[in-house]
Amino acid sequence: MRHLLDIADLSVGEIGEMTETAEDIIKNPEKYMGICKGKKLATLFFEPSTRTRLSFEAAMIDLGGQVIGFESGTNSSASKGESVRDTARVVGNYADIIAMRHPSEGAAFAAAEVSPVPIINAGDGGHCHPTQTLADILTIKREAGRLDNLTIGLCGDLKYGRTVHSLIEAMIRYKNVSFVLISPEELALPDYMLDVLDENGAEYKITESLDRFMPNLDVLYMTRIQKERFDDLTEYERLKDSYVLTNEKLICAKKNMIILHPLPRVNEISPEVDSDPRAAYFRQTYNGKIMRMALIIKLLDCKNVKCGGVSKKYYLGYKCKNKKCITQTEYGLTEKNYIDKNGLRRCAYCDSLI
Amino acid sequence: MRHLLDIADLSVGEIGEMTETAEDIIKNPEKYMGICKGKKLATLFFEPSTRTRLSFEAAMIDLGGQVIGFESGTNSSASKGESVRDTARVVGNYADIIAMRHPSEGAAFAAAEVSPVPIINAGDGGHCHPTQTLADILTIKREAGRLDNLTIGLCGDLKYGRTVHSLIEAMIRYKNVSFVLISPEELALPDYMLDVLDENGAEYKITESLDRFMPNLDVLYMTRIQKERFDDLTEYERLKDSYVLTNEKLICAKKNMIILHPLPRVNEISPEVDSDPRAAYFRQTYNGKIMRMALIIKLLDCKNVKCGGVSKKYYLGYKCKNKKCITQTEYGLTEKNYIDKNGLRRCAYCDSLI
Amino acid sequence: MRHLLDIADLSVGEIGEMTETAEDIIKNPEKYMGICKGKKLATLFFEPSTRTRLSFEAAMIDLGGQVIGFESGTNSSASKGESVRDTARVVGNYADIIAMRHPSEGAAFAAAEVSPVPIINAGDGGHCHPTQTLADILTIKREAGRLDNLTIGLCGDLKYGRTVHSLIEAMIRYKNVSFVLISPEELALPDYMLDVLDENGAEYKITESLDRFMPNLDVLYMTRIQKERFDDLTEYERLKDSYVLTNEKLICAKKNMIILHPLPRVNEISPEVDSDPRAAYFRQTYNGKIMRMALIIKLLDCKNVKCGGVSKKYYLGYKCKNKKCITQTEYGLTEKNYIDKNGLRRCAYCDSLI
Repeated sequence: MRHLLDIADLSVGEIGEMTETAEDIIKNPEKYMGICKGKKLATLFFEPSTRTRLSFEAAMIDLGGQVIGFESGTNSSASKGESVRDTARVVGNYADIIAMRHPSEGAAFAAAEVSPVPIINAGDGGHCHPTQTLADILTIKREAGRLDNLTIGLCGDLKYGRTVHSLIEAMIRYKNVSFVLISPEELALPDYMLDVLDENGAEYKITESLDRFMPNLDVLYMTRIQKERFDDLTEYERLKDSYVLTNEKLICAKKNMIILHPLPRVNEISPEVDSDPRAAYFRQTYNGKIMRMALIIKLLDCKNVKCGGVSKKYYLGYKCKNKKCITQTEYGLTEKNYIDKNGLRRCAYCDSLI
Repeated sequence: MRHLLDIADLSVGEIGEMTETAEDIIKNPEKYMGICKGKKLATLFFEPSTRTRLSFEAAMIDLGGQVIGFESGTNSSASKGESVRDTARVVGNYADIIAMRHPSEGAAFAAAEVSPVPIINAGDGGHCHPTQTLADILTIKREAGRLDNLTIGLCGDLKYGRTVHSLIEAMIRYKNVSFVLISPEELALPDYMLDVLDENGAEYKITESLDRFMPNLDVLYMTRIQKERFDDLTEYERLKDSYVLTNEKLICAKKNMIILHPLPRVNEISPEVDSDPRAAYFRQTYNGKIMRMALIIKLLDCKNVKCGGVSKKYYLGYKCKNKKCITQTEYGLTEKNYIDKNGLRRCAYCDSLI
Repeated sequence: MRHLLDIADLSVGEIGEMTETAEDIIKNPEKYMGICKGKKLATLFFEPSTRTRLSFEAAMIDLGGQVIGFESGTNSSASKGESVRDTARVVGNYADIIAMRHPSEGAAFAAAEVSPVPIINAGDGGHCHPTQTLADILTIKREAGRLDNLTIGLCGDLKYGRTVHSLIEAMIRYKNVSFVLISPEELALPDYMLDVLDENGAEYKITESLDRFMPNLDVLYMTRIQKERFDDLTEYERLKDSYVLTNEKLICAKKNMIILHPLPRVNEISPEVDSDPRAAYFRQTYNGKIMRMALIIKLLDCKNVKCGGVSKKYYLGYKCKNKKCITQTEYGLTEKNYIDKNGLRRCAYCDSLI
């Protein structure tokens, strides 16, 4: 059985296959309309995320399947103290595939250890959100016609923005992709992500200015400066307006630059930009649904065959110190870890150093 | 593309077609069972309304379609600061038609300005709730056999009750329809609604007594005195029992009078009345589902054809002063207004005078 | 029309038929895939219960039907003061069968009095939860191959645990079934349940020790000590670990003993037990879905035929004193009572003595 927990679980070849499937779905939707007849997707959203949930549900329905699930953890058995793994094991008796959103990092990994059906990580705290990255990749592919030879600007909250980290990890695997990292110092890309860029020999520039490298960009990926991430709300108020994209700022951009945003936006892209043909963020949500269709097809196909994917060797023991890790709250979980390619020991669930 | 935002968007002729479709659905349900196969309705309920939501969902399912959505705004992206228009634009990539409930007046209009799919207003604050009026109209048509030559009693909260205002606006367009306005002075029909009656030359009587004109009524439309509408709860407690319909009060009513209520009721109709054959309020909910089926068919049909409907000329500018208007909270919305038939300037979103 | 409010509504013969249907569903699922095409189940969950709700929804979908409903009472019309009976009557216009969960005892009975479609009680406070018992019965039948000649250990909260009471009432009707009642004194089986055992001539032993009778048991039914049931939280903390099942405790158990749990568990079964082949509690959730399929088939079949089932003679009057009874909160409900086989008068809704 195969799960999708982290974008790194998918090889470049697999992502290529999936974007091909996605483009075929767009061309020939009727071919896929009955492909999941009799199958059920469970959307287990321990914290709300309307957009992601509706995208998964629409994807499954467009494949001819059905959906069960919950919108928010306050209404789930979790509030009675049930573990994520028990929930996955039970719901695996009701559904053929599970999309799970959870506030704890590593929650999807914990579920995948015991689930009788494939788990899709629909976001686990600040850790991973691989289907957003799949949406981003398909959008770049469809808008630019390629995934290599690109200069990608990443703007906003590069510190906490998991979609940014995930996109970097996915795109560095393509040839000749360079990055421009645009953020206030307080929200700069963390050192371990800079290490990832360095290790892969990716070119990048760091700037506080949204304007400075605008003419160079093939892709501009805007992100929301999330209130939830700030302990100090005055700091949030000071920064939130710093990186607002307007028509004026776009004057010096390339005519075919692609503007992306994982949404929801608050005010970081002015509504006047929406009618610019370069604004691809609403098409990006459409592409998200299509890639989720391709993913569901892939994982359900894999159910009874031995699958590839990246596998790691795990060791028992060592308590993870990340306060947001699922190992902190899940009753009876066995601590596990692995050694990364730099010889550092990391938590199997949330990938923190231990 | 065609939306339904206000009952006034539909002409008398269109309502006639829809009641005909509705009556055909009741006679030949199997004819309609697969008509929306492959289509999705999104129910975006930024505030809960179980009855209305389930009615829409049942309607879409009975047409062979599927449903996605959310039950309450607390679980939606709106709580992360997303605008109604962004939500509509994104969900329009997932669904073929949207039913939206929102606490702000004009929210459905704002959504319709940008949505790629038809918007049905399932209630926008105290402003409009056109599908309730469609349910009322079909019920009168089916119970009385006609929509003209009727004396309609409206009882309870005539000040805040949007269903009452909407029913008046719909029914004054039929021949020889008169009204009896039954309410305490504090909850009397507002002057602008009396103006609507006067302008249309409709006869009406105003009374504080539920008994006085009972023998004259062909239809008695009861409404809930809603706690939510009162700033002063002692005032609510004093008034809420004033207009309770009982079997005793019904003794002098016509044998074929039709008792309607938009539901939910609290205690304004005594449960003993439920078994009276004149009590049509549960049949009214059934008719609501049927009219929503007819509406979905109409709007999906219209998607690719040029449609009629009432269109207005809009002007930019002028800030709306209605505190409950969507223009007060929606980021980046352009203020718009129109000139009504009396030459008064009104907000395009909530129809308030400006 | 036929409802399922209490496990006692089903005769031993009927339960036998349903387990046969269930076993046929497992063998030939495709036979049942379209059996409810065009039918809708409404899941009205006035309080959340994810597991039960998803099980019902999966059951209906696997029969080819569709689902509408709500996850939690806070989003329903109930919060506007609507009665349970009005909700049932309205939703009965939208759906073909209703599964209802409600915090008040007797709520499902109240709904069944007026509903135009069958009502399934999916839990009414501490009163009844018959579909859990159906899951338990099918699991015992499938795991042990029989429903008679069994020694059943019941462990944990025997005072408030309605699933335990319900399982006793169901199993005493089979031949040669004896019980071991394992609990701290504070959470012992109530006297009226001991009376039920005595009246039926069932053998039982009472013990505070989980170990003592372990070698005798054919079935061990573990239950959660529910935090919600305690007024005094220190008492909860003291007791919650007393009855934790571990691999060590299982050493002296029969090799084919069946371990059951209604779930969710917190820590009363150590996760290490999960891989023991005797651990049947996850299979039990699967069986729950299957029995709900069998039940939906049965009740929809019964819709237009005169059905058997246990019927009682009801008398009007007498106010029920149970503070959790639906008669305490439902507006306009007529008090009703019946005389039980011992000549005692009980509330028709919650079965309390009056």
